[in-house]
Amino acid sequence: MTYCLAMRLDDGLVFLSDTRTNAGIDNVSTYRKLHVLQPAADRLFVIQSAGSLATTQEVLDRLDREIANRESPSLADVGRLFEAALHIGGLSRDVAAEHRDALQAVGADATASFIVGGQIAGEAHDVLLVYPEGNYIRASDEKPFVQIGESKYGKHQLDIAVTSDVSLETAIKIALSSMISTARANLSVGPPYDLAVYRNDAMEIDHARVDEDSPYLAQLQVTWHRIVIDAIAELPPIPADVFSRSRRG
Amino acid sequence: MTYCLAMRLDDGLVFLSDTRTNAGIDNVSTYRKLHVLQPAADRLFVIQSAGSLATTQEVLDRLDREIANRESPSLADVGRLFEAALHIGGLSRDVAAEHRDALQAVGADATASFIVGGQIAGEAHDVLLVYPEGNYIRASDEKPFVQIGESKYGKHQLDIAVTSDVSLETAIKIALSSMISTARANLSVGPPYDLAVYRNDAMEIDHARVDEDSPYLAQLQVTWHRIVIDAIAELPPIPADVFSRSRRG
Repeated sequence: MTYCLAMRLDDGLVFLSDTRTNAGIDNVSTYRKLHVLQPAADRLFVIQSAGSLATTQEVLDRLDREIANRESPSLADVGRLFEAALHIGGLSRDVAAEHRDALQAVGADATASFIVGGQIAGEAHDVLLVYPEGNYIRASDEKPFVQIGESKYGKHQLDIAVTSDVSLETAIKIALSSMISTARANLSVGPPYDLAVYRNDAMEIDHARVDEDSPYLAQLQVTWHRIVIDAIAELPPIPADVFSRSRRG
Repeated sequence: MTYCLAMRLDDGLVFLSDTRTNAGIDNVSTYRKLHVLQPAADRLFVIQSAGSLATTQEVLDRLDREIANRESPSLADVGRLFEAALHIGGLSRDVAAEHRDALQAVGADATASFIVGGQIAGEAHDVLLVYPEGNYIRASDEKPFVQIGESKYGKHQLDIAVTSDVSLETAIKIALSSMISTARANLSVGPPYDLAVYRNDAMEIDHARVDEDSPYLAQLQVTWHRIVIDAIAELPPIPADVFSRSRRG
């Protein structure tokens, strides 16, 4: 399993991915699921992936080959982010279709989902979710984030806290709290975590890897757990007059 | 959809259920999914249900009929909670099987899941989850809670905060925070909420209904949202030396 999320904020973009993959619970490994591509000086893409690891790797390899061979269309010459999303979606669909029969024979699935974010000069920065079928959706104005993979466990704090006007620093904290909530609930999501932060119009990216044994991650988890427990204690109790007692319901 | 949860604590049991049901998004209604049964003075059961509303209602009606007709086995004469769970599981499987062919013809599903909790005199209080197949599991010592229905969105605070030694008052707050997190993420889960609290060995139950338009629910939601946002702000920022900058990843 996988968990990746991305946010589109007034100040820029925040991306966070876990790195755990598994082919059965006895074959757990670590793979990068967050990739930065800058095929030309006027554009920067961050691509996150979930689903079949084989499909996502072949899609990334094909994207690289297209750029190296100066093929068109490629991420080097698409004019808009939605065209990049459709291009990646098309490759993803093609790769999955190519391997479908062989994989179905053993009960496996070759489909993958992607998040594509970044900026092409002259256009606003954005994040888009690309479905296995090849189509896409943008993050909405009301909920300016997208998720792929194991998205439910860590969605609540995104629903509450992510608005376009939060700072990148706050957005990073929201993303990390969402990730550690998910990793705690589902063992197939886990560190190291890859973070990428894009400041509007920068055409360069800041990235960080939060390692499993880093003092920072330990501090983050301990702090979050303490805070959640404190937060619950702060909730108002149910008023006594709402209760009734019965021996038979 | 539905969300029900139950906790087994040193001091007793806490149950919380939503009431929203839907047969398609244009046929949303409100049904009780938390039922208290006391078929004899030495026992008290709380039954929560998720899945096919028709199946859960027929199971409850059959349980009532068995008790009224003094049939055996029934919830009035089972000796242990796990026997009650297996009995309910067997009825659930039978009812679902009876309607399976007709429902499959229209693409519907007749299966249901249950939580069965309470106490039979001489035995410890407990909560058990009954699968559609009729088998059951208990809440574990490490995670003394069970959930049915839309269980992922509100699981994180249960993972962090529910331990056997929390007070019933704290457990109620944890349960409510889990419920409002779920309802915010999934519109098919919603108020009113039914709460039942059982104190160890009491053989009686306290219950409360939290209505959609109650000032308490409004206060609870506003407080929880503010607290979560404050909590995220308290998280430690990523140390600057973990970041690196690149134009190409």
